[in-house]
Amino acid sequence: MTTRIAIIGASGYTGGEALRLLAMHPRVEVVAATSREYAGKPVAAIHLNLRSVLGTMKFSELNMEKIVSEAELVFLSVPAGVSHTMARRLVEAGVRVVDLSPDFRLRDPRLYEEWYGFTHGDPELLAESVYGLPEIHRDEIRNARVVACPGCNATAAILALAPALREGLIDVEHIAVDVKVGSSEAGRQPSQGSHHPERANVIRPYEAEGHRHVAEVEQELSLLCGKRLQIAMVPHAVGNVRGALATAHVWLSDSLDETTIWRAYARHYGKEPFIRIVRSGPVKYPDPKYVIGSNFCDIGFAVELSRRRAALFAAIDNLMKGAAGQAVQCMNIMLGMDEREGLNMLPISPV
Amino acid sequence: MTTRIAIIGASGYTGGEALRLLAMHPRVEVVAATSREYAGKPVAAIHLNLRSVLGTMKFSELNMEKIVSEAELVFLSVPAGVSHTMARRLVEAGVRVVDLSPDFRLRDPRLYEEWYGFTHGDPELLAESVYGLPEIHRDEIRNARVVACPGCNATAAILALAPALREGLIDVEHIAVDVKVGSSEAGRQPSQGSHHPERANVIRPYEAEGHRHVAEVEQELSLLCGKRLQIAMVPHAVGNVRGALATAHVWLSDSLDETTIWRAYARHYGKEPFIRIVRSGPVKYPDPKYVIGSNFCDIGFAVELSRRRAALFAAIDNLMKGAAGQAVQCMNIMLGMDEREGLNMLPISPV
Amino acid sequence: MTTRIAIIGASGYTGGEALRLLAMHPRVEVVAATSREYAGKPVAAIHLNLRSVLGTMKFSELNMEKIVSEAELVFLSVPAGVSHTMARRLVEAGVRVVDLSPDFRLRDPRLYEEWYGFTHGDPELLAESVYGLPEIHRDEIRNARVVACPGCNATAAILALAPALREGLIDVEHIAVDVKVGSSEAGRQPSQGSHHPERANVIRPYEAEGHRHVAEVEQELSLLCGKRLQIAMVPHAVGNVRGALATAHVWLSDSLDETTIWRAYARHYGKEPFIRIVRSGPVKYPDPKYVIGSNFCDIGFAVELSRRRAALFAAIDNLMKGAAGQAVQCMNIMLGMDEREGLNMLPISPV
Amino acid sequence: MTTRIAIIGASGYTGGEALRLLAMHPRVEVVAATSREYAGKPVAAIHLNLRSVLGTMKFSELNMEKIVSEAELVFLSVPAGVSHTMARRLVEAGVRVVDLSPDFRLRDPRLYEEWYGFTHGDPELLAESVYGLPEIHRDEIRNARVVACPGCNATAAILALAPALREGLIDVEHIAVDVKVGSSEAGRQPSQGSHHPERANVIRPYEAEGHRHVAEVEQELSLLCGKRLQIAMVPHAVGNVRGALATAHVWLSDSLDETTIWRAYARHYGKEPFIRIVRSGPVKYPDPKYVIGSNFCDIGFAVELSRRRAALFAAIDNLMKGAAGQAVQCMNIMLGMDEREGLNMLPISPV
Repeated sequence: MTTRIAIIGASGYTGGEALRLLAMHPRVEVVAATSREYAGKPVAAIHLNLRSVLGTMKFSELNMEKIVSEAELVFLSVPAGVSHTMARRLVEAGVRVVDLSPDFRLRDPRLYEEWYGFTHGDPELLAESVYGLPEIHRDEIRNARVVACPGCNATAAILALAPALREGLIDVEHIAVDVKVGSSEAGRQPSQGSHHPERANVIRPYEAEGHRHVAEVEQELSLLCGKRLQIAMVPHAVGNVRGALATAHVWLSDSLDETTIWRAYARHYGKEPFIRIVRSGPVKYPDPKYVIGSNFCDIGFAVELSRRRAALFAAIDNLMKGAAGQAVQCMNIMLGMDEREGLNMLPISPV
Repeated sequence: MTTRIAIIGASGYTGGEALRLLAMHPRVEVVAATSREYAGKPVAAIHLNLRSVLGTMKFSELNMEKIVSEAELVFLSVPAGVSHTMARRLVEAGVRVVDLSPDFRLRDPRLYEEWYGFTHGDPELLAESVYGLPEIHRDEIRNARVVACPGCNATAAILALAPALREGLIDVEHIAVDVKVGSSEAGRQPSQGSHHPERANVIRPYEAEGHRHVAEVEQELSLLCGKRLQIAMVPHAVGNVRGALATAHVWLSDSLDETTIWRAYARHYGKEPFIRIVRSGPVKYPDPKYVIGSNFCDIGFAVELSRRRAALFAAIDNLMKGAAGQAVQCMNIMLGMDEREGLNMLPISPV
Repeated sequence: MTTRIAIIGASGYTGGEALRLLAMHPRVEVVAATSREYAGKPVAAIHLNLRSVLGTMKFSELNMEKIVSEAELVFLSVPAGVSHTMARRLVEAGVRVVDLSPDFRLRDPRLYEEWYGFTHGDPELLAESVYGLPEIHRDEIRNARVVACPGCNATAAILALAPALREGLIDVEHIAVDVKVGSSEAGRQPSQGSHHPERANVIRPYEAEGHRHVAEVEQELSLLCGKRLQIAMVPHAVGNVRGALATAHVWLSDSLDETTIWRAYARHYGKEPFIRIVRSGPVKYPDPKYVIGSNFCDIGFAVELSRRRAALFAAIDNLMKGAAGQAVQCMNIMLGMDEREGLNMLPISPV
Repeated sequence: MTTRIAIIGASGYTGGEALRLLAMHPRVEVVAATSREYAGKPVAAIHLNLRSVLGTMKFSELNMEKIVSEAELVFLSVPAGVSHTMARRLVEAGVRVVDLSPDFRLRDPRLYEEWYGFTHGDPELLAESVYGLPEIHRDEIRNARVVACPGCNATAAILALAPALREGLIDVEHIAVDVKVGSSEAGRQPSQGSHHPERANVIRPYEAEGHRHVAEVEQELSLLCGKRLQIAMVPHAVGNVRGALATAHVWLSDSLDETTIWRAYARHYGKEPFIRIVRSGPVKYPDPKYVIGSNFCDIGFAVELSRRRAALFAAIDNLMKGAAGQAVQCMNIMLGMDEREGLNMLPISPV
């Protein structure tokens, strides 16, 4: 008995990664993969890694009637501003939604105008949707009709900071999140900035003012510390294809010893199936290099008590724990399966 | 019921990849992982990708008594010149051997002096060992006591050429195999040449005279065409970490049409679980990029009938189909399992 | 006293590299840089490396009247099929032409239909134009009105093979040229294939049948050996941005000793200002890594007398000796300057 | 008339880069290049990019008598803890010193014990030495006997922050400097961490507690703002070979408008020959990609007045403005030459 899944917007990188993961998942079946641009073409003509894997599966046009009749759960892997017009049709037909776009991430509908430039068309459904970070919202995800998967930079930022905020360990007035991320984060559409000769070897700050993920990070961190906070956040494009590291530079709110901090992280993350706390070894801090191809998030930190400062790190594969892997993790929770089902692949190394 | 496996030499890249694969394999169990250099240290302190995965497994000293009492099959992941002194002890105790080193690849023991500079210590066992390329020696692998996994460059070279040679399609006097391979091929030991600033961005020919894999490639190709042949082979180090592409430049032995060539390849590889024939799409020829993390070998070719020449391509992940993946494939065959068991992971893309 | 230069098509990579080189050249002055796409925009808005360097220089529309009145020599850095319609207007006004496009490379005008798909519009001017490889055509370049700079892959292929062919050292029936080249070779226009996530880490054969540079390589090699020959040539895109290596796999025409071969290369290249013969050291063969940023071509080879085969290598920076650097070298010769003027920059390493 | 220069420790990356730059410099001559490890070997056998360039120059043993008799100025390109024992011998013989090591960077000799673990042997000479950042100490450099070139990460950090501190624009209690840097920064010695398969594709924090450059950055920034300050600083190794970017996350000390900030930077850097202020274009913020191969430092920033925060960026080539280029710039100042002499090479792009 498998659950029938459809992927709307399956030709991009998160859609392709979802296809790859679901094709290996023992308890689900992909019944449709839509793409406006590539409808009618074999999936494997676009996702070359999937050659010979999906038989003759072709991308289809989006036909909502067909999808609600065939699928039990849908992945929405579409650009910002699309999902909010689609989700109601699905949930009213009893189809649950895992949304990889930002349309259901922000609790306050007005923020969509400020950060994304569109008016949210379904504030009611937004009100019941759940932010799909299992480490924080696992129980709500279980029964949600719409789960909004976090952005990749947001996933890393929040996971790096969550225990520190929950336990009041840091000065919430001065949090600087510096993110470094690979090129796959920006999706499958070529541009001058993504052209290989221009994109290789960059260390390029982008959206240093007003990065959209700031909104969801502030929302979630504010919830965790019970106080409206603001952060400084600057993402940087680096030469990798995959991988994201968030370095949160923080000042300690009180004189702590390092053990207290470790204990806080161990308490919050000790039982998490996809979080690994890193504190020793030849590479002493988390590095996305060692999670590539897996759903792991490696967490670690550096503390200088003499300066009352710390750096909190979270390393992920941006297409896995930062996108499709987390979506499958949420799906597993929604379907009452073991959260790790179909996600047991170990990181590839070296790569 | 799982089969008990030991890995001798588990701290290198092929050993680490074997550990990763066997940890995900549903029907085997790793009972020992030896390392002279790291005995006593946690496996995850060396293979950082395996953090939290193998529990508290530590590298152990090599204790042959213990291994023959605990393991049913052993992976030998050791440098050239070591396995030939170890294998007999194992097989006499009824333990089967998958050797990832070159010690059992060459049928003629005298070739070890010429190519590897040591005198083979066990010509008798060599005589019964099998070259572990399932696409060519599947039936012999099934019951072999010692299977010698091919080198990564050799795997790509042979798979690119095999059907053409079997069917007499090309001039065997003029075969030039140009290989490009990533840095993981050279193993885990740092050197001046592998130092990142020196190794990044190279397009560096190496062993352009007397590359050791030439010996096994000539052996296997000669067997396939029934005639002693010699090849020209030059490997090139390129900037990748993983991936190998063999480009065999050949001249066609007769006026063929392209269909004949396709049919020959389809006939020989059509049912192979890990070979994919590539003939179209935005990337028209095989590229290791699209097999990374999997055991696939992508095969393709370009034909210029007007010049009576062709280029035959084979693309692999050098640590998977070129090493540990192929070793697991051989193990599955030896143990009578489905050949794909534990090897169903799809290539990661983009990466 | 400086010579006035115009660059037509200055927004691409070869145009940008020409701008960079000419801006550092002590005896020339760039008086115009045209670009249809970016006319009116500051040059430094496109070529970010040239920020603050060229003052307020802007790209201009192509105005042939203005160019012939202002410039003494013109670089044509335009796509195939454009120069042949422009060059006459320039030379008739007494303006000399260094063409970086393929329009004046092939002696036989009919070949343009076969290889490039257009009918050459000026066979007469073609007849007097000179193939701009100074190591072979230095004397003709001196007084040429139109010099056609070779393609980057062709430059490497020809320089690797020239002495061997001139001296009849190899079997001309079986020459396989395997080229590996970085992404800047394909120019500044984004595409799906050049999108960073798709282009990074590739080892991707392209144009394996009918690569356009084959035509000019065969032309020049045939001239050198005095016999119409054909080659097998396959370029491969690799992950670098810059750099090209040609590996020519050849069979020796006679039993030679290695010294004879070295002597042939030393004789032909010993006085060449931009050719370095590589025969020892930690990196024993040429690698483009060590010529990046310079106009050098490193030449070397591997010989296996027992197999009567050799590999001949040439390594270049594809935008320097493979394009703009060679164009400046030709310009220097045409203007009667020291050939090295403005080209004395040493390779950057490590990079 | 050229000035005679010796390089002590010329086999490493900064030494090699100094050799390359001095070989192209029109007004100096390298009379000795020492190396303990490679004494007697041709320089070009180690620095492969310099093949054919330096004639037959060989590395020599360090012979202080010979150096003081032959050289007028010496570059010390040695590990920490060596220069402080050598410099006096040189200056007393009238030889001026450009030290690329940290031994003369910190004004307070006691800091060497704390940060470097050795007792400074020459506090007197330390007292007169000058921190070799021309943008801050140009006048003192002119007549200094010992100039201590800054570390690469320190150069970027200080140049990003200097105008903001000088003009009191930011909260000096909360400065977080996040640095990303390529592998050449760590020098020429291979290690497990620099082994290509392990070092490629990293986003690896290192020395996140107690990075040694913190000492010099705090020293210089404290001088600029007239107040003892402390910073949070975390360097990250990224996959590049060359390039460093410092991102300083700061909070604005007062409600400023963006123009005030631009003016401060323009005022301090407007006439600097090697600083370029970046504020627009397709890549809006500084990226080391566009300074590679040059001595430029690109400076820029992002301001969010609503959050009273800013990010200040500085991008350099770590071996040029971050090491040997800056050393040559200091040398030029010391010798009364044009500061740009021999440093007019433009950034290579794309690379």
